[in-house]
Amino acid sequence: MNLINNIEKLCSIHAPSGFESMLIEYLIGWFANFIPNAVIDKTINNTLLIIKGQPKVVFIAHADSVGFILQYNNKLLALGSPEVFEKTKLRTIDNFEVDIESDQDENYYLKSNKTFERGTTFTFIPHFIEYENTIQSPYLDNRVGIALLMQLALESEHFCIVISSNEESCGGSIEKTSRILYEKYEICKSVIVDTTFHTEGIRMGDGVVLSLKDKYLPSERWVSVVKNILQKNNIPYQLEVEDVGSSDGAYIHKSPYPIDWCFLGIACLNNHSEKEIVNIDDLNYLYDAINYINKINMFNL
Amino acid sequence: MNLINNIEKLCSIHAPSGFESMLIEYLIGWFANFIPNAVIDKTINNTLLIIKGQPKVVFIAHADSVGFILQYNNKLLALGSPEVFEKTKLRTIDNFEVDIESDQDENYYLKSNKTFERGTTFTFIPHFIEYENTIQSPYLDNRVGIALLMQLALESEHFCIVISSNEESCGGSIEKTSRILYEKYEICKSVIVDTTFHTEGIRMGDGVVLSLKDKYLPSERWVSVVKNILQKNNIPYQLEVEDVGSSDGAYIHKSPYPIDWCFLGIACLNNHSEKEIVNIDDLNYLYDAINYINKINMFNL
Amino acid sequence: MNLINNIEKLCSIHAPSGFESMLIEYLIGWFANFIPNAVIDKTINNTLLIIKGQPKVVFIAHADSVGFILQYNNKLLALGSPEVFEKTKLRTIDNFEVDIESDQDENYYLKSNKTFERGTTFTFIPHFIEYENTIQSPYLDNRVGIALLMQLALESEHFCIVISSNEESCGGSIEKTSRILYEKYEICKSVIVDTTFHTEGIRMGDGVVLSLKDKYLPSERWVSVVKNILQKNNIPYQLEVEDVGSSDGAYIHKSPYPIDWCFLGIACLNNHSEKEIVNIDDLNYLYDAINYINKINMFNL
Repeated sequence: MNLINNIEKLCSIHAPSGFESMLIEYLIGWFANFIPNAVIDKTINNTLLIIKGQPKVVFIAHADSVGFILQYNNKLLALGSPEVFEKTKLRTIDNFEVDIESDQDENYYLKSNKTFERGTTFTFIPHFIEYENTIQSPYLDNRVGIALLMQLALESEHFCIVISSNEESCGGSIEKTSRILYEKYEICKSVIVDTTFHTEGIRMGDGVVLSLKDKYLPSERWVSVVKNILQKNNIPYQLEVEDVGSSDGAYIHKSPYPIDWCFLGIACLNNHSEKEIVNIDDLNYLYDAINYINKINMFNL
Repeated sequence: MNLINNIEKLCSIHAPSGFESMLIEYLIGWFANFIPNAVIDKTINNTLLIIKGQPKVVFIAHADSVGFILQYNNKLLALGSPEVFEKTKLRTIDNFEVDIESDQDENYYLKSNKTFERGTTFTFIPHFIEYENTIQSPYLDNRVGIALLMQLALESEHFCIVISSNEESCGGSIEKTSRILYEKYEICKSVIVDTTFHTEGIRMGDGVVLSLKDKYLPSERWVSVVKNILQKNNIPYQLEVEDVGSSDGAYIHKSPYPIDWCFLGIACLNNHSEKEIVNIDDLNYLYDAINYINKINMFNL
Repeated sequence: MNLINNIEKLCSIHAPSGFESMLIEYLIGWFANFIPNAVIDKTINNTLLIIKGQPKVVFIAHADSVGFILQYNNKLLALGSPEVFEKTKLRTIDNFEVDIESDQDENYYLKSNKTFERGTTFTFIPHFIEYENTIQSPYLDNRVGIALLMQLALESEHFCIVISSNEESCGGSIEKTSRILYEKYEICKSVIVDTTFHTEGIRMGDGVVLSLKDKYLPSERWVSVVKNILQKNNIPYQLEVEDVGSSDGAYIHKSPYPIDWCFLGIACLNNHSEKEIVNIDDLNYLYDAINYINKINMFNL
């Protein structure tokens, strides 16, 4: 499997927050086909837990993207926090393309003669570009995370992967998965694999991003272990310290189960727009990092 | 039992958010008397779980209403989001009536020579009117939901009902009930039975309201099943898509247990005021809907 | 053990929200030494559950204080809600002292020639004063709570104590502890032991504070029991009714486990600043109160 081609494929699938079933179905097929001896747990709505062997760490990537849902009178409500450019077009799950317009309050409306049912969902139109050592596409957030975990599954004897839903909007997926991870599989350590914002402190191309703080605070003892693994294996990394934003780590944080969490990702330019950009070196470093962390499965934590 | 008379009775009981014990006691008596072979679980503070037979779906209605609690210096703090009209009066749990006044910042104060202890709670004064095919009263939200579930209990061999508390304010009831529903009774599907706001998109008299989105996103796969039941049984319905507001579904959404949820309700004019109005046809359609959904208990989901 | 000396010692330990490991290590040593036959559960990150005998009520005090964490370009992000005075200095975990400055948007920056790593944490400089019947120090919130629970442990045959983390910032400690309290130790009643704000309604020196409402609503039935214990034992108390603020009770409130909670504390002047002040009589009354409540362990609730 070519990593970049796989990311392009994943970015083309319509899966706005809360309505991820098409991508989930695709992934069920892929895992059943390529990792036939893994267990696929589909208990949770639009969520997959895939496990093989005796892993000790779960890696989590969210399936959902930002998007829109049709309310009344052609008004679109955001699913997550989409960033719209001047000429952004949208499409339905059936690839029907529509124009949109906004009023002065930044409300968005469909510009279309066709009538859609309330609740119809829309996403950005796929457009994938590879240029020098970067890739640009809508929905790199977080199809790059999923692609890395698919590669990890192909190359590992022991792994535990969760593909979550609703991360961009209102959660509800990882709260429920945490119970199964802890009570059924005795998993106590987790790594959120995701993109994060390119800011004054976090730069595209400067290596993987380990978060020390967002709206939540990751587990002090587990962040310390992960930081040591990055240092020991000479993986370039940057420490993120922010006041806002959160990840699927928030839902583990608030869950009743004693699963430590941390966030490990890569910087993404133009995040949540149709032109998200990531650096391919960062991507490869992130794969190395999760691969090393997954190896500690073999030893006692 | 006459449905409308029962709603009137329920609307007259003082049960502001967080202080629902009088209504809970009344309902314990009613269920013990009229459904003697049902199990009544009182584990959770001001919350009832009532079950008979082998149901597969739980129906949830909240007991609490909006109201006020006395702070210091005659200041009233809101419990939930009460809407006050110009001449609104309030009463205590002992039916002592008081006038209130507001300052320019919309803070409310008691106008009374009597001294009340800190923490005394107040609700709107009961005043029930049936007019053509509508009823008007404070606290139709959500005594109509409770009344429908009482009727369901009278007419069903198998049912699971939850009367929750704290829904209008800060939750804490359904998070705890979810555990018992899933771990003890293996319930995996839920329907929130409640009122919702009359808006440009949701009209009183236009049938039951199935929510596709509020602040949270109900389970895609379960909403699809419920929508099919409404269509197959020719129940008039309207799809709600909103950015704000939430229901007891939010607490199931965030719970660790894999219980799918959806919201099924009716439009309510002047919601959270002393003059809430609902349509009686809507009410009957909602009863039909939950009755049909409860019947799928008998088959495999 | 002298209560006041112990509070001074605890106030001197660096433990900002999310980074409490130094205080947690100190307490592990203390409990192992002075209460050798108690069980110390360290499952949860930076959190201790200490139990002896067959207690029925858990008492909870948080270990973390407000503080700061270094972001990029000398900018400090708050951990919790610290109140800074004009000449406030800070220190690192290694007692390195630094000056700070603020811009017009109340952002704080390090004024130091030394370079610190991203994520370095800072707290107020210890300065403990006993004056008449008050004590003044940074971090009385909530080292006084911990000190009272240490004394309770020394003097009780049966007790259950939790030292939590992250209370000032983003939670994540008590959600996880609730599961162990309920599932392993069958604890169904809890008391949050903490400081609260000195306001127009709650006065330093007027006795212990029993909360009827903050952002959350404590369990009606359990508050009623605790209030009766205070009255029966002639402990001076004041009832708190607020719209904002919350405590570790919030995390029990939202947890799946049927643990009733209430808040019992003392008023603290200049809360979250380097000059927090509490009244020693209040402190002694609070100890009496928790001691009486702990005694109901011996009877049926």
